[in-house]
Amino acid sequence: MTQATSSTRRTSSIADGELSALSARDAIVAIRERRLSATALLDACFARIDAREPTIHAWSHLARETARERAQFADEALATGTVLGPLHGLPIGVKDVFDTNDMPSEYGSRLFRGRQPEADAAAVAVLRQAGAIIIGKTTTSEFGMYHPSPARNPLDPTYSPGVSSAGSAAAVVDEMVPLALGTQHTASTILPASFCGAHAFKPSFGFTSMDGSNILVPRLAHIGFMARTVEDLCLFASAFDPTLATAHIYVSRPPRLAFVRGPGWDQVTTDADDALRNLLATLPIAIDTVELPVDFDHAVKVSFGLLNAHLAHRFGDLPSQSFADLCPPLKAGVAEGKTLSAPDYLELDAAADRMTAATSALFAHHDALVTLSAPGEATRLEDGPGSGVLAAPWSLCGLPTVSLPLLHGRKGLPIGVQLIGQRGFDRKLLQSATWLVRTCQNHSSKRA
Amino acid sequence: MTQATSSTRRTSSIADGELSALSARDAIVAIRERRLSATALLDACFARIDAREPTIHAWSHLARETARERAQFADEALATGTVLGPLHGLPIGVKDVFDTNDMPSEYGSRLFRGRQPEADAAAVAVLRQAGAIIIGKTTTSEFGMYHPSPARNPLDPTYSPGVSSAGSAAAVVDEMVPLALGTQHTASTILPASFCGAHAFKPSFGFTSMDGSNILVPRLAHIGFMARTVEDLCLFASAFDPTLATAHIYVSRPPRLAFVRGPGWDQVTTDADDALRNLLATLPIAIDTVELPVDFDHAVKVSFGLLNAHLAHRFGDLPSQSFADLCPPLKAGVAEGKTLSAPDYLELDAAADRMTAATSALFAHHDALVTLSAPGEATRLEDGPGSGVLAAPWSLCGLPTVSLPLLHGRKGLPIGVQLIGQRGFDRKLLQSATWLVRTCQNHSSKRA
Repeated sequence: MTQATSSTRRTSSIADGELSALSARDAIVAIRERRLSATALLDACFARIDAREPTIHAWSHLARETARERAQFADEALATGTVLGPLHGLPIGVKDVFDTNDMPSEYGSRLFRGRQPEADAAAVAVLRQAGAIIIGKTTTSEFGMYHPSPARNPLDPTYSPGVSSAGSAAAVVDEMVPLALGTQHTASTILPASFCGAHAFKPSFGFTSMDGSNILVPRLAHIGFMARTVEDLCLFASAFDPTLATAHIYVSRPPRLAFVRGPGWDQVTTDADDALRNLLATLPIAIDTVELPVDFDHAVKVSFGLLNAHLAHRFGDLPSQSFADLCPPLKAGVAEGKTLSAPDYLELDAAADRMTAATSALFAHHDALVTLSAPGEATRLEDGPGSGVLAAPWSLCGLPTVSLPLLHGRKGLPIGVQLIGQRGFDRKLLQSATWLVRTCQNHSSKRA
Repeated sequence: MTQATSSTRRTSSIADGELSALSARDAIVAIRERRLSATALLDACFARIDAREPTIHAWSHLARETARERAQFADEALATGTVLGPLHGLPIGVKDVFDTNDMPSEYGSRLFRGRQPEADAAAVAVLRQAGAIIIGKTTTSEFGMYHPSPARNPLDPTYSPGVSSAGSAAAVVDEMVPLALGTQHTASTILPASFCGAHAFKPSFGFTSMDGSNILVPRLAHIGFMARTVEDLCLFASAFDPTLATAHIYVSRPPRLAFVRGPGWDQVTTDADDALRNLLATLPIAIDTVELPVDFDHAVKVSFGLLNAHLAHRFGDLPSQSFADLCPPLKAGVAEGKTLSAPDYLELDAAADRMTAATSALFAHHDALVTLSAPGEATRLEDGPGSGVLAAPWSLCGLPTVSLPLLHGRKGLPIGVQLIGQRGFDRKLLQSATWLVRTCQNHSSKRA
């Protein structure tokens, strides 16, 4: 992993084949110093995509021509001394649930095949404003839910990349783009990051506008950031909140961490449990354990109840030939949702409110909670897309979370460490994440 | 009606019997100028209450001792030159759906008889902070819904005072207090103001925190202000938003008004319709007519659907002996709400979103819409509490509204003119209201 301080050395002589492997931060520095053009970086990314996409299926659309025009514009602007923004010239992938005015936005659904929005989603507009080059739309589970997407795990294509921002996680880990945008209602950012080995950041609820994305349950709709380093997560998210640009720099003291088992911990594999315990044991700080209020036992049920109610509202009245086009798990969700009464729905919503309120107390003495991002390594494709049970409760309560690929299971595939912050304290969470990654790096370099 | 400029003259020699009839603004001026003590004003209000309460039933609790202590404190503070806030020493009534730490808060319900909250509601705390003396809790329909309260119409006790902030409207109009706080989910401020002849202001949704009040449907829960003049509404609301303190002063040009029929206009009586047409015809400005999008035909049904769903969630699981204590219309609402499915509920919520979004266009060329506050004069007690159908759509969409007692029906009872403003433009609405009241006053004084 590249430290910010080593950027210049690392990028002083960039071989063509290494370009697409550059971290976003290294690429930005190289572009600003005119040692690298946005166009060359873009070409390298497309070359990598051309080589790997037939195996990985990370992309549902690519905007080769408009991306190239914009990269040229970024290079010309810089030649006149104009920096377009913090992401000047960076190639970025966007999950195909965000509207884009130059590419279809199909939600991974046959129902919306060929749908061309008129305007960019709010988040896409922010990224373009920040100087990013949106090179394509990444593959997603249908409506960001349940069903596997076409994407494959870049570490081993016979394994699941998780759901639903699978294309974004795969594209980043496979070095097709340094950064990619995802979303999360329950686990859609954290789970694929864990399975593919990406660094991911799902901010607090309300972090930015979700206008122009497939908001299924308003209270669960989050943006998600995928990158290959924590520093790049800070850079990426700083396009939306400039206070995050320096979160990785000012890490003055070790965070106060507490280990937490979430609901669904019974699904955790022995090797994942052991790996996390071992990692926590090596840390130079004491790690408390916190217990969740009993209400949280229902967190996953509440999340899926809310999802199914909204699925039934959204798709319950479709004409039968359109309904037939939905993937089986969405159909099942619609059927489930139709069995709920209005008071049932309001009780789910009220339960979510109660759990959310109860989370504040968890941070009275801790900066972040630490747990697993997923119950274990990536599942084999034929075993389904994996379980988001360990991420769903935090998404339900709108807490910011990160997934850091610091663990491995017995098959050698990554398992994410999930850090959970207090709602609204996203910067502090990224500081805790930076500390944890650096401490683990120091530890492994000493062992090596 | 007293103009601000005439305050000094009017209050320079205040007879004891006139004290409780003072407008809030006149009382404030007299108190600040030390021509009137908060204690004397309080005593006058209690004397009026003692004389009239056996007929009017405006109060469910009175805090005679704590109110007197606080009035003395206000007088002592002023003697040292300390003004506690914009409502220094003013006696105020608060609808019994707001929590008060010195009086029970029973929501007008047998289920909550004797309930003593530990803390003040957010709005009550704001009023106390502004120097107001909360003298008691005003009677309310059970949970602010549907059923008549014990209050009687102060203009004729054989008539309904409307629902549900009936005690607050009656107490203000009957000169028991200059100001009283109400709430509104559908029509609970505008309807009683219309029936009793109060001036009322229901601000935009989100105007202030409703914490510590009986929020039944979060998206419908509004605060409501009752007074006897528009100037007093501005003063009252300025405790929450200081920009409103001067809304009645800077009225530079006639507002651009448009007449609107709401859904339920078929319930409007001929005399009410005629009275509004006549008033609009006398105004020195052209009044357009705007048509509502067809979606609004369902506004009342959507409002009551949301209410019933939440009633079913809140009371649907009560033990049968408690459920039996609820008034019949609440029981009926619970039964209705139980028949709704979760997707039905979400469709009601989505319909409310669509209507709310559509309201912005109504204000493209107008400062305020003008309509009736109620379909006609107050109903006789035996004919039920009256219909809130003309207020409900604006409450559903979170638009600010005022009711001004500018019309009379054929029985000589008042009918409110309802002005509707754009969401978030409360100050502009109060300016339009000030212009309308002053223009009508000038008109009547010329005729007289």
